[in-house]
Amino acid sequence: MKFKTIEWKNDCVRILDQRRLPQEVRYLVCRDASSIAQAIRTMAIRGAPAIGVAAAMGIAFAAKKNLFLPPQAFLKSFEKICDKMRKTRPTAVNLFWAINRMKGIFNESSLDVKKMGVRLEKEALKIYSEDIEINRKIGEHGKDLIKNGSGILTHCNAGALATAGYGTALGVLYAAWAEGKRFHVYVDETRPMLQGARLTAWELRQTKIPITVLTDNMAGWLMSQQKINMVIVGADRIARNGDTANKIGTYGLAVLSKYHHIPFYVAAPMSTIDLTVASGRDIPIEERDIKEVTHFRGYPVTPKGVKAYNPAFDVTPYSLIHTIITEKGLIRKPFHKNLKKCL
Amino acid sequence: MKFKTIEWKNDCVRILDQRRLPQEVRYLVCRDASSIAQAIRTMAIRGAPAIGVAAAMGIAFAAKKNLFLPPQAFLKSFEKICDKMRKTRPTAVNLFWAINRMKGIFNESSLDVKKMGVRLEKEALKIYSEDIEINRKIGEHGKDLIKNGSGILTHCNAGALATAGYGTALGVLYAAWAEGKRFHVYVDETRPMLQGARLTAWELRQTKIPITVLTDNMAGWLMSQQKINMVIVGADRIARNGDTANKIGTYGLAVLSKYHHIPFYVAAPMSTIDLTVASGRDIPIEERDIKEVTHFRGYPVTPKGVKAYNPAFDVTPYSLIHTIITEKGLIRKPFHKNLKKCL
Repeated sequence: MKFKTIEWKNDCVRILDQRRLPQEVRYLVCRDASSIAQAIRTMAIRGAPAIGVAAAMGIAFAAKKNLFLPPQAFLKSFEKICDKMRKTRPTAVNLFWAINRMKGIFNESSLDVKKMGVRLEKEALKIYSEDIEINRKIGEHGKDLIKNGSGILTHCNAGALATAGYGTALGVLYAAWAEGKRFHVYVDETRPMLQGARLTAWELRQTKIPITVLTDNMAGWLMSQQKINMVIVGADRIARNGDTANKIGTYGLAVLSKYHHIPFYVAAPMSTIDLTVASGRDIPIEERDIKEVTHFRGYPVTPKGVKAYNPAFDVTPYSLIHTIITEKGLIRKPFHKNLKKCL
Repeated sequence: MKFKTIEWKNDCVRILDQRRLPQEVRYLVCRDASSIAQAIRTMAIRGAPAIGVAAAMGIAFAAKKNLFLPPQAFLKSFEKICDKMRKTRPTAVNLFWAINRMKGIFNESSLDVKKMGVRLEKEALKIYSEDIEINRKIGEHGKDLIKNGSGILTHCNAGALATAGYGTALGVLYAAWAEGKRFHVYVDETRPMLQGARLTAWELRQTKIPITVLTDNMAGWLMSQQKINMVIVGADRIARNGDTANKIGTYGLAVLSKYHHIPFYVAAPMSTIDLTVASGRDIPIEERDIKEVTHFRGYPVTPKGVKAYNPAFDVTPYSLIHTIITEKGLIRKPFHKNLKKCL
């Protein structure tokens, strides 16, 4: 990729501001953890793996700034910043997973405060580079599912922009393309935030993969026209039984895929799997400001005062998912057995 | 309704410019048939019954202006204007039905050219007032399908704005509400032109019916949450077997309804039924400028040069439709038998 979604650079974390894409390629320069938390909350950076990386960097960043504190105050500030990160967004489990990894380092208590800063920074950078490595592996495992000449539908953005780099669902496409497979990608615009039309289209335009953008409500019709041979999406949290939370609209797509006998794939790192959650019913679904629905870039679409609905995610039941593609390989049904085996 | 969708007033046809709603209530004042054709083409006026009315008015209007012509030239100009109207939009059959009604008047050949103007104007106004009457009847026939306390999903705008007044799908809701039934309406925003978020929301806000706007990709999730008890939509053309062309996204909704065991209703006047067409495969589907998908009010959403897909309609197969609500009553399956019986 010619761009970096997020990057630790000396004394700052540079975050590609995805709210401005595709019109502007501009980086947010974050010099404290609060501005990183803010970037996550406002979706300047989004995508389950990417916000995990951002949170980890934010925590390391804050810790390094607080090294001068006495141990008790340092502990308190560390807890506080973890908490702040935890509260940014509720659905993607990678965020909590990354925070827990940082906490694990912190709890290796023999360390003195001074060494702690170095260790936390190292861990955040490890989470970052591991994520790229994991995505490459997801791509390798998934690429054989892509058939030459096929039409592939994707929703939202599960690409380099949603991760430290390369991508999960799009990573599979990149790996297949690199191997010489040829296919066409149909990109759901993904209302209300248009991650498909803005981000996936932008990202794929930097490759030679041919794409067509469509409004979300066209997917069913395209399927009935036999233009779609497979659907591949990312994930924000996968429950023990395989139920998968992902961007709103994913569930509807999965039902449409079932109806049209089109295989529906989820590509995600193992860190997206949350064994503490038995099924999708236990995954908290973020509801965001209805202005994302009623307005477009500040311009009102609906009449004033209209009520709107804005869940950021939905849950696709495991029964509608064909295979989960992870860095450990393809996970087939029954998911409740095979997910556990891989972890 | 406190507004008129279209109105013949002395020497002009006033058309409520729906492109500007809900921000501005502004009327286009059309003083010739070309500007009426242009209003249809650009969707200043839209909705199958409404564009039928507009085309009829446009034809009458042009004829009245051409009364000074010798008979042969008058005939030629009449054919030309019918042709112009015919070419505005291809899918909604009400347009062609209305043009044919006007032609029928013209062909009552004993008339002299001077009387023709009066007769054509009268016929256009008859189509207009009949349409309102028909909508009222659709409402009366359909209102018993609405259950008190239910959640009702609608797509696009099949209301007063889509007709001469009152509406088809929304007419059913108005009739039920007037009778004291209470329910909640979920309004699909209906990309790309946002007829739901802009028009249906605006129209329903003028009543006391409570509404929630959602992006199209949320409908499936809402259904799975058991918030939706029925779906009701309008139609642009119904084939002999009951296959129904309607705004893009209708087909996907019908599939989702089937999956969730939610009845899916179509409300339309008999003029929407096209017995010359055996099935949905023979209905021409308009493809519109991709800018409607790639831009929002002139502002680009996708990266420059991206390919997009923009069919304005899709076809819902008869098997997914529970009942068709018309002015002649509820038409049940088998549609291929019962549609014919009613005509």
